[in-house]
Amino acid sequence: MAKKKIKMTRERGHRQRASGKLIEMGKEVVSDIEKVHPPKLKMPSRSTSNIIYDEAHRYFVLGPRYGLRSAGSMKQVKKFAQLLCTADFAKELIERGKFATLREMYYTAEGWDAGPFSDQGESDLIIEDLEATCGLKREDLGLTPEEDGAAVFGKLVVNEDGVVIDATKAGRAGYTIPPTIDDVEFLKCKAKRVIAIETMGMYHRFVQEQAWKKFDALVVGLKGQAARATRRFLKRAHDELGLPVYLFTDGDPFGFHIAMVVISGSAKLAYINHELAVPDAQFLGVTASDIIDYKLPTDKLRELDVARLKQLLKDPRYNTKFWQSEIKKMLELGKKAEQQAFSKYGLAYVVKEYLPAKLGLKS
Amino acid sequence: MAKKKIKMTRERGHRQRASGKLIEMGKEVVSDIEKVHPPKLKMPSRSTSNIIYDEAHRYFVLGPRYGLRSAGSMKQVKKFAQLLCTADFAKELIERGKFATLREMYYTAEGWDAGPFSDQGESDLIIEDLEATCGLKREDLGLTPEEDGAAVFGKLVVNEDGVVIDATKAGRAGYTIPPTIDDVEFLKCKAKRVIAIETMGMYHRFVQEQAWKKFDALVVGLKGQAARATRRFLKRAHDELGLPVYLFTDGDPFGFHIAMVVISGSAKLAYINHELAVPDAQFLGVTASDIIDYKLPTDKLRELDVARLKQLLKDPRYNTKFWQSEIKKMLELGKKAEQQAFSKYGLAYVVKEYLPAKLGLKS
Repeated sequence: MAKKKIKMTRERGHRQRASGKLIEMGKEVVSDIEKVHPPKLKMPSRSTSNIIYDEAHRYFVLGPRYGLRSAGSMKQVKKFAQLLCTADFAKELIERGKFATLREMYYTAEGWDAGPFSDQGESDLIIEDLEATCGLKREDLGLTPEEDGAAVFGKLVVNEDGVVIDATKAGRAGYTIPPTIDDVEFLKCKAKRVIAIETMGMYHRFVQEQAWKKFDALVVGLKGQAARATRRFLKRAHDELGLPVYLFTDGDPFGFHIAMVVISGSAKLAYINHELAVPDAQFLGVTASDIIDYKLPTDKLRELDVARLKQLLKDPRYNTKFWQSEIKKMLELGKKAEQQAFSKYGLAYVVKEYLPAKLGLKS
Repeated sequence: MAKKKIKMTRERGHRQRASGKLIEMGKEVVSDIEKVHPPKLKMPSRSTSNIIYDEAHRYFVLGPRYGLRSAGSMKQVKKFAQLLCTADFAKELIERGKFATLREMYYTAEGWDAGPFSDQGESDLIIEDLEATCGLKREDLGLTPEEDGAAVFGKLVVNEDGVVIDATKAGRAGYTIPPTIDDVEFLKCKAKRVIAIETMGMYHRFVQEQAWKKFDALVVGLKGQAARATRRFLKRAHDELGLPVYLFTDGDPFGFHIAMVVISGSAKLAYINHELAVPDAQFLGVTASDIIDYKLPTDKLRELDVARLKQLLKDPRYNTKFWQSEIKKMLELGKKAEQQAFSKYGLAYVVKEYLPAKLGLKS
């Protein structure tokens, strides 16, 4: 490892901004108290009726409705106090440059006057309240989930707190995206695109067949549904590095969903999709047409698959000619196929034949 | 990354041995055919009645019973052919230095005369047959599961096919143990012990509080039940590097089981435990006594927990004074606790207080 002098960390703008928002929130509360008013906080409504698909941005956002949380209401005073305790805990984490898992925060609350949470679901909801109130990701507040993000292999060099990591030299399993991806600085990137892959089996195939080299790609192993850190990584790779993002998933409703959550975000996270969604990401997964064209081994659609596909037909995110036609074709066919089904033609086929054809790199 | 000349790979003894075993097996079959006998293969029985807890080795092994698989039996001929096709596929993988996932192997069989498997469960069983027949791990045969192994952080430097990786410089999330851990060479290790941790939340806590430095430890994040590659890593760290292995899990029957599978192996993998089990590994997880001594936040034991604990009392692996007493105490208490419950006393408490006390490093 070259002992180059690297500045210790990328500008922690997001964490300073988070700290500022928390202080602002605290001042509002103090000001109410000084006026001898019961303190209250304005909070965007996250109810289904306030979640809107934004056609211009091409992802879900919150609508204009707000609610008030007030210490003057007997029903709300406990939650109000818990929100302030959580904000205080987050502030300390930011100041000390630390992180805590959602689970640790749940147990930490055992020591609060505002009382322990009855389960983690309750403390997670308070954290969501805080995210929505401040318009910040919980990661910026120092609160992270348990799981790490995806694996990355390819010509990318990053700086994590002064440690330089080359994503071709972090091991065969790749560089693991940490929950704190916003602290990571992109130092150098020679890749020209990102190919994100649903299963780790296919990810390892891509690494083994050196697809990252052949296609000048950052190969990303999503491990199923992409973690928030992974989605943030993909967005940053697209926006900061200017790389097109391709999504290679199984040919089934779950695979479509995995891709679409990267592209257009989820409804549940409407209040934070502007930091996560990659509307220009392109679906490169197995389609009903592929099943026919490549004579792939298939499984029959289960009842649940059929119901899910019919839902997708009505989902605004799938309201394009491509999706409508492919979903209908899959319903007619009554079959689905996994990305590893290409192994029927040999292990390297997917990298040598399918992918170049899909990417339009083949005559 | 220093461009030191590192030999490309560690001696691939395990893969040469695998190749030799496959050739041996093939010769047996050919010899039968030349004698105009229907070819047959001897295979250790993996039925429950042939799985024995070996008191001397302190893990499960297979007993002396064998079965025969014969091409002369109508009932067995298809499975016999599939076994040979699988052996052939494995041989090619070894020769070409490649790996395939179990899933890829299942799809590859679509092209075989011995016919496709009806589901992956069937092809996985044939692979187990081959493992048991040859006394080899499927990883040595080039067949790997989808998932990667655990995360490692600490003073260990490894060589993966000529790429040198320092497990303090592979990123905040650590070095990921690949399914092909037997190809990895340990170049340098300055750690004095291994601490393997059940949850990734606690793993990140250990990394953040620099427990790896304070305790001269390789900190390993198991991600729940340890993958085979992780168990192999722990065994190699113990046997080759001479490091004591400690297991820090939740204080519940599942946590005990996670630790015990590392220590004494599982019954299901009795035919391969000699390559996986670490009988000298020490349990350092949360106990019923800890729950009392540290006044930890707890959850009530569910019915399933109680049933499981009662099973453990009769399990030969738990037939020690320590386990019998702790399991009975937990049943009396009716409570369990997670490792992250120590956050009640502050995030760093577990590293500053609990662990040193448990390791006997504190006065």
